[in-house]
Amino acid sequence: MNYKVNLAEKFALLHRPYEPGIVGYLNDYKLQIVKVTGPFVWHKHDETDDFFLVIEGRLTIQLRDRNVELQKGELFVVPRGVEHCPTAAEEALVLLIEPRDTRNTGDAGGELTTEPIEL
Amino acid sequence: MNYKVNLAEKFALLHRPYEPGIVGYLNDYKLQIVKVTGPFVWHKHDETDDFFLVIEGRLTIQLRDRNVELQKGELFVVPRGVEHCPTAAEEALVLLIEPRDTRNTGDAGGELTTEPIEL
Repeated sequence: MNYKVNLAEKFALLHRPYEPGIVGYLNDYKLQIVKVTGPFVWHKHDETDDFFLVIEGRLTIQLRDRNVELQKGELFVVPRGVEHCPTAAEEALVLLIEPRDTRNTGDAGGELTTEPIEL
Repeated sequence: MNYKVNLAEKFALLHRPYEPGIVGYLNDYKLQIVKVTGPFVWHKHDETDDFFLVIEGRLTIQLRDRNVELQKGELFVVPRGVEHCPTAAEEALVLLIEPRDTRNTGDAGGELTTEPIEL
């Protein structure tokens, strides 16, 4: 990535909820953006933590024992192995960082499993 | 890190330019915030890329062949081995992500070298 990334411009290229778009890389990590609307799927990543930063809107990260409520400018790292399910009542714009080989639905798989698109 | 991080609250705890504060970890990476005012020092990290996201203000990342001008909501990853010198005419609030063992001044060392504080 030799150019800067304007997140607002990149978010405008995403048209479906939960469609992950890659905006760059940091070593062996992918820098992804996603528009969150409604519930995702309960899943976990046994091999990695999972970074969420809210760029716009409000995001709820449901954990089995509590909800983490994030608004713009707030971040949360889901520890590896911890089940979580992101959801948002209205569209939230989120920056995600995780290793390149991380599957979006983790151990759950299913119909929301998808490869990120390169933005 | 079991709690969410509100970046604005964490930035309020930093009182000196270029004093890095750790707000969390992502696997073996540290999530750092820094207030940038004026020029840092030219340096490079031969072993890692370097992630910069502007949370507030404007940041210039000087490279040897050009300047990368970032404003709020813009990010840039300095590739490993590339000399760079961040600077800001007015205070910029920046999120930095790099491996835990990365020295802030890279290969340059000198008086600006410091360990991050845990916020």
